[in-house]
Amino acid sequence: MIEPFRTNLPLLRDVARVRMYTDCTMDEETILTRSADADAVMVIGFHVPDAMLDRFCGFDGGPGHVRCFAFGGTGVASYIDLARTREHGVRVCNIVHYGDHAVAEHTFALLLELAREVGRLNAEVRAGDWTGADGYALHGKTIGLVGFGGIGQAVARIANGFGMKVAVWNSHVDPMAAAGLGVDLIDDMGDLMERSDIVSLHLPLLAETAGIVTIRELDQMRPGTLFLNTARAEIVEPGALTARLLRGDVRAALDVYEREPLPLDDPLRRVPGIVLTPHVAWRNDEAYVGLTRQVVQSIRSFFAGGDFNVAN
Amino acid sequence: MIEPFRTNLPLLRDVARVRMYTDCTMDEETILTRSADADAVMVIGFHVPDAMLDRFCGFDGGPGHVRCFAFGGTGVASYIDLARTREHGVRVCNIVHYGDHAVAEHTFALLLELAREVGRLNAEVRAGDWTGADGYALHGKTIGLVGFGGIGQAVARIANGFGMKVAVWNSHVDPMAAAGLGVDLIDDMGDLMERSDIVSLHLPLLAETAGIVTIRELDQMRPGTLFLNTARAEIVEPGALTARLLRGDVRAALDVYEREPLPLDDPLRRVPGIVLTPHVAWRNDEAYVGLTRQVVQSIRSFFAGGDFNVAN
Repeated sequence: MIEPFRTNLPLLRDVARVRMYTDCTMDEETILTRSADADAVMVIGFHVPDAMLDRFCGFDGGPGHVRCFAFGGTGVASYIDLARTREHGVRVCNIVHYGDHAVAEHTFALLLELAREVGRLNAEVRAGDWTGADGYALHGKTIGLVGFGGIGQAVARIANGFGMKVAVWNSHVDPMAAAGLGVDLIDDMGDLMERSDIVSLHLPLLAETAGIVTIRELDQMRPGTLFLNTARAEIVEPGALTARLLRGDVRAALDVYEREPLPLDDPLRRVPGIVLTPHVAWRNDEAYVGLTRQVVQSIRSFFAGGDFNVAN
Repeated sequence: MIEPFRTNLPLLRDVARVRMYTDCTMDEETILTRSADADAVMVIGFHVPDAMLDRFCGFDGGPGHVRCFAFGGTGVASYIDLARTREHGVRVCNIVHYGDHAVAEHTFALLLELAREVGRLNAEVRAGDWTGADGYALHGKTIGLVGFGGIGQAVARIANGFGMKVAVWNSHVDPMAAAGLGVDLIDDMGDLMERSDIVSLHLPLLAETAGIVTIRELDQMRPGTLFLNTARAEIVEPGALTARLLRGDVRAALDVYEREPLPLDDPLRRVPGIVLTPHVAWRNDEAYVGLTRQVVQSIRSFFAGGDFNVAN
């Protein structure tokens, strides 16, 4: 992501002095030392623990004086204590819609690995096995989307291309978007799960969506359903997905987890045929360009007195 | 495929006596013994060698008297000597369009494995590695299709859903289909390869298409191009694809090969990052239903004096 950042840094000319390190470290002391005199910090994919937040901002009486965190992601509530920053007047910025296509495309990469098993077949051919496997057709199947924002709509467009039927549950749906994409709106999330061949989650993580998918809805999935989550694990009631999947009659592919990195002893790893990727759905060339531009714009706006992408 | 066949067998009631074995054998003697008194044979995914053809049909002076082979595939020229059957008045039937969606979907399964590497990432997460990888965006990229029949058009529809640009080279293009799918027609196959980010082959194997893609066109692919073949290896000049890919600047995913099963010492296996599946693109639930119905209809038509799906 270094090159896309460099490309956008001229936006900060005459606004801020920029210090950029091109090595990668997750060591908290190194990060705090390097940002000791910073007014603003750009953060990508790093969880800021409470104690570290205190030191960044000087809440602990120390020299830290960060007043703005510009995150390169949408679900910032997973990465920093938003209430605590708000209480102290520290700005947190997120970014929006930069990765709609990237996440929608990864959703289909996961779905097609369940449907056609290219990863497994490639390994078998390399090992000299020519047995192959029967695939699962997408054409004519119904995909049920929980959530219908930018990502959900991008998923619906792709599903239309495959000749799939699209059903949607969402608390608020833009009727124009629904009509334009020819989707069926379903009032009850459990009904959506029951009538879908494939279920995919596309809600943002907010106070109102945390735990909104419960075991009651998950239980309505029929045997043979394919389940996808490229959104956030926390929108599902804690433990409910693992409990549902361990029954073994639903196949799943996931990019997000309650704990990341996924612990080696996590019971999800024992679900038969599960496909796991390490929270990479948002990561592609197109998204990096949009993401870095928005992060730099957030910092520029903060220093210039604007309110671009404020999340808290 | 046994259940879809059973479902369709009532079509042969009062037309033919059917003998069905539900075990799987590739042993030529077993197959010849079992079909010794057959007038017609249904063949799925089995190459009929010349010597075996002679014995099936009694060209060797033996008791064989098969007069119709109904293949469950489109590219029957790869599976039996069409000229020799024609010369002896033995009918060969193929099937058409049964697998357009299946092959188009597998094309995207291969493309997304190159773009997002779910197979590799899944293996890494299982091994405890959380590094991940940056993906390759499909949105906004150009896919160039060599061939624009039923499969090519299905690929174009899916590509439209992903927000890709679609360019097409084909000897004869239905202008209505091209206009309806918003594709750019390119007169020169080499130009198509040069301007495409992704190249995918979708020609049938015919006398006019065998070897139609030569090293001259393949050389026009830019470094970083992704190359897909779910059609037939024989539409590329022998050895040309291997030579082009071994240069290492084009990434490829293939489902078809000059020799199948792909020999363990085939140099294609040494192409960096190549993704290989064992000729499975046509195999899915939807295709099996359409395929078995057409095979049984071909046999019914043969015995009833019709000419359904005659290929020779």
